[in-house]
Amino acid sequence: MTEPDFVWPVRVYWEDTDSGGVVYYANYLKFLERARTEWLRAMGVEQLAFARDTGLVFVVSGLRLRYLRPAKLDDMLRVTVTIEKVDRARLRIAQRVEYDGPDKGASCMEAEVEVACVDTASFRPRRIPDFLLERMEQPK
Amino acid sequence: MTEPDFVWPVRVYWEDTDSGGVVYYANYLKFLERARTEWLRAMGVEQLAFARDTGLVFVVSGLRLRYLRPAKLDDMLRVTVTIEKVDRARLRIAQRVEYDGPDKGASCMEAEVEVACVDTASFRPRRIPDFLLERMEQPK
Amino acid sequence: MTEPDFVWPVRVYWEDTDSGGVVYYANYLKFLERARTEWLRAMGVEQLAFARDTGLVFVVSGLRLRYLRPAKLDDMLRVTVTIEKVDRARLRIAQRVEYDGPDKGASCMEAEVEVACVDTASFRPRRIPDFLLERMEQPK
Amino acid sequence: MTEPDFVWPVRVYWEDTDSGGVVYYANYLKFLERARTEWLRAMGVEQLAFARDTGLVFVVSGLRLRYLRPAKLDDMLRVTVTIEKVDRARLRIAQRVEYDGPDKGASCMEAEVEVACVDTASFRPRRIPDFLLERMEQPK
Repeated sequence: MTEPDFVWPVRVYWEDTDSGGVVYYANYLKFLERARTEWLRAMGVEQLAFARDTGLVFVVSGLRLRYLRPAKLDDMLRVTVTIEKVDRARLRIAQRVEYDGPDKGASCMEAEVEVACVDTASFRPRRIPDFLLERMEQPK
Repeated sequence: MTEPDFVWPVRVYWEDTDSGGVVYYANYLKFLERARTEWLRAMGVEQLAFARDTGLVFVVSGLRLRYLRPAKLDDMLRVTVTIEKVDRARLRIAQRVEYDGPDKGASCMEAEVEVACVDTASFRPRRIPDFLLERMEQPK
Repeated sequence: MTEPDFVWPVRVYWEDTDSGGVVYYANYLKFLERARTEWLRAMGVEQLAFARDTGLVFVVSGLRLRYLRPAKLDDMLRVTVTIEKVDRARLRIAQRVEYDGPDKGASCMEAEVEVACVDTASFRPRRIPDFLLERMEQPK
Repeated sequence: MTEPDFVWPVRVYWEDTDSGGVVYYANYLKFLERARTEWLRAMGVEQLAFARDTGLVFVVSGLRLRYLRPAKLDDMLRVTVTIEKVDRARLRIAQRVEYDGPDKGASCMEAEVEVACVDTASFRPRRIPDFLLERMEQPK
């Protein structure tokens, strides 16, 4: 398994769980996005300012998820971001939510995320700005 | 207890619960808002169109909540809206979340909600439009 | 397009949206689940009582999602449930979130959902009870 | 203003915002709870293990909130915890959500939170364990 491009820690709180005693299935998508947001921030993109300056926003256009083992209240997790493909207006990103306490490194869930760069008003596809394309494509 | 001005039914889903086996404390605020939104809709206010047409949005400026008995997955609830006071730019609303299955009518939580009418851009207080003030003030 | 097995209406509230002005991508999963929950309820399964009586719970083990057009505040949506395949301990369900106001019938998002029947304590796969298998398999 | 007993940083993500462009009013309650949870953790209480070991859980029984200025996407916030009163089975805690970027220290919202220590099964009030009472009462 190759090293991810970015890793972000996440703690499980009451808000994330459901009465099955585990993290509610939709809430993992929040964890995935926090990691993508922090990965963008690490490349210099604050999304609110970015939208104002460029008229662009990144939206998820497709998702493929496999839920492997449930996370629970108080669990410490690691969320990974690995760029798989960069096009002019589109990215494919692999992500993983892993345990970071007991069972460290075991996958809790895995995702493949299609992200599109779109116009904030029309939601039509737009070219990713060059400075960002370059940073996304450069080898680690 | 006087009759509420408006009542809205809410079902408890997995998304609403936490691993304590009950509705997560923040999620009752969603129930309260659904009821206020539907009460506004019943008076002719679709909030997205209203914001576009008038530049106004209603925001909660204060809240007082008492959690009395927990709601659980699959529970059917009733959320009430009772106007307590209408000012030019401000409302005070009493709300209650009640059981609507077994224990019908027993309170699950009670709230007092301060709502302000503000400018969508500046969030400064603005006068509630007359047509709406009149509808809010008229006796049931 | 075949007729879905079940349809559930959903209204978009403030809680569902994000500051991009559209429904937050994770929140569609809540809509999908409300529809699956109501489909189960229509077959006689109240999940909390079902878990207590049988020791079983249905969990999502995999998801494939395509986000097509964004839903917005106040939108009225229809969420469909179509059973694609029923195994002893596993279901594959196609779901769609459609507009139900202007653009009625146009897809907002589409999903393929793998659901597993598992033990509430161990999360190990368990056979779906016969009464339910029969109801799931019977032609509409 | 006295120094808080505990401070926890929170970043605003897409998940927290609504289509008004600000943090959704219910989501501040998640921020408040993350801070209370980390304050408990700093005193040695991991709540899932604590519930298993003692049969106790802390629940919010009352809340008083004032929303002062909206937080937005990408904002960095500080959430404070200040113990106001400790009884045998009950705490009163003051909390504040403050900006931690521009406008550093300005209040975004203020809360007074009543917390009860209850039995996990019956939700009846129970005495807070001595080791914890002592830690809560000791001067900073």
